[in-house]
Amino acid sequence: MSLTVVGSIAFDAVQTPHGGRERMLGGAAVHFSLAASFFDDVRVVGPVGDDFGDGEYAVLHGRNVITDDIERVEGGKTFFWSGVYRENMNARDTLETDLNVFETFDPKLSQESKDADVLFLANILPALQLNVRKQCAQATFVALDSMDLWINIARDALVAAISAVDCVILNDSEVELFTGEREVVAGARKIMEHGPKAMVVKLGRYGAALVTPDDSFWVPAFPVDFVADPTGAGDSFAGGFVGCVAAHGGDASPAVLKLAMAYGTAIASFNVEEFGTERVARLTGEEISDRVRELRRITAFEADVVALR
Amino acid sequence: MSLTVVGSIAFDAVQTPHGGRERMLGGAAVHFSLAASFFDDVRVVGPVGDDFGDGEYAVLHGRNVITDDIERVEGGKTFFWSGVYRENMNARDTLETDLNVFETFDPKLSQESKDADVLFLANILPALQLNVRKQCAQATFVALDSMDLWINIARDALVAAISAVDCVILNDSEVELFTGEREVVAGARKIMEHGPKAMVVKLGRYGAALVTPDDSFWVPAFPVDFVADPTGAGDSFAGGFVGCVAAHGGDASPAVLKLAMAYGTAIASFNVEEFGTERVARLTGEEISDRVRELRRITAFEADVVALR
Repeated sequence: MSLTVVGSIAFDAVQTPHGGRERMLGGAAVHFSLAASFFDDVRVVGPVGDDFGDGEYAVLHGRNVITDDIERVEGGKTFFWSGVYRENMNARDTLETDLNVFETFDPKLSQESKDADVLFLANILPALQLNVRKQCAQATFVALDSMDLWINIARDALVAAISAVDCVILNDSEVELFTGEREVVAGARKIMEHGPKAMVVKLGRYGAALVTPDDSFWVPAFPVDFVADPTGAGDSFAGGFVGCVAAHGGDASPAVLKLAMAYGTAIASFNVEEFGTERVARLTGEEISDRVRELRRITAFEADVVALR
Repeated sequence: MSLTVVGSIAFDAVQTPHGGRERMLGGAAVHFSLAASFFDDVRVVGPVGDDFGDGEYAVLHGRNVITDDIERVEGGKTFFWSGVYRENMNARDTLETDLNVFETFDPKLSQESKDADVLFLANILPALQLNVRKQCAQATFVALDSMDLWINIARDALVAAISAVDCVILNDSEVELFTGEREVVAGARKIMEHGPKAMVVKLGRYGAALVTPDDSFWVPAFPVDFVADPTGAGDSFAGGFVGCVAAHGGDASPAVLKLAMAYGTAIASFNVEEFGTERVARLTGEEISDRVRELRRITAFEADVVALR
């Protein structure tokens, strides 16, 4: 099996209440790739400038991510984002967004990338997501992420992209913006009317919900002692989630999707413990498996019968 | 076994995006009592004015709540609260708080109420909570709730009350206000340094966490199609939680506390579906049990082994 991800590759500058970094490797496709690399061969498709150097490639290669489809734009600069997290880390303010080479990004997939069994369309222009999805005609499981910007200014194109995938991954405020529905399940079902058979609603520090046509499933965030930097947590979650489906041959049965929620949750919890990719870059499969088992333990209860009056 | 609750009995006026009520039965001790009544004999201790009539007593008696220790202040008026929930129902604005007879409330417990095996101190002045706790010397499990006001203006008295109970129930913003800790587990452990062996952190629409000295346990809110009115959800949760412990003879073992989290979650989910006490007043034990089983199902996953790379 193989897994292709298309999306942003970036340098991030981040300040949180616990410190900061002036320039660190980031971008949705990077965080996703590192997380998914525990499950399958991962090909990453995205643009970089000639400021993207050996050190950055080394992080990806350290997890055996296949970088052949990273498009290097000579004379260009890599996408740069800087932001500051507020005291409670529930919100962040963007200081600067320099799209640079990302502004004119038109994904070019090698035959190997097109042949992927599983595809993840990270948050890019919806029209490009649809274009890529069509190029990967044989993919058995395709998921996409998006953002408030596209819901606001490119809604029709986003609906077209959503209609062409199996699973949509958004956070709860995006679902509410998209549908006007405040309840997670009701909002997810409205989005699924466009075609997808599953939807993941990310709840930030509170975990995530999986919604299928007639069921839902809930996991809390894995509790950590300390959150250094939430940047990339959602993409790490997606990498673990989609990666787990890929490891099961693209099988999107309820049992696999639920397990995938647990793997996504576990990897995201490591991501936030340090800045950027720092923690996930040296993560081990054993550490991930331990947290999945632990997540199961801290959510399980015996439905002992109480005789109610 | 028997269970005593001390706290507010009120009339509430509420507006939510889905409607409103001008005057409905409410108050922490009322919501708690109705929820706990499914598990044990419940005695409610709290003050009312002579505007508290047969209709209000009928709601409590309809669930067999023992109202002998409701103190009726002749010529007094019952505590009145009015509030408006904002569009997303994540926050509410208080329009009016008339403490009325609640302002000078000094709990007087009958011998039967003092003999309770399990005691819940709903949100009242911390010094009164401690006073009541001392009167119920033989209680094997005592829990308390509080609020931001007491954390801000009566911290020492609140610490003294906390030191005298087995379990503290607060929401996550109160825990952060109390401890300065943003992470749920770290914050709860700081509060538990004052003595309690367990703490419940309510996460509103996202569920709740149980924190013990060396473990944690997490449940999502039970997903409902429609939230009419969140008023009393936290007290209904507490009633189901503490009630379940009472049904187990005050046993606060991990297995019982986890199950109690599930019962609290189930009853709270009914509470929010209609205004005030309307839904819980006609709830059945079978409906509660069904949601507990369903909650278990929508949070359980098989920890199938994925061979990670």
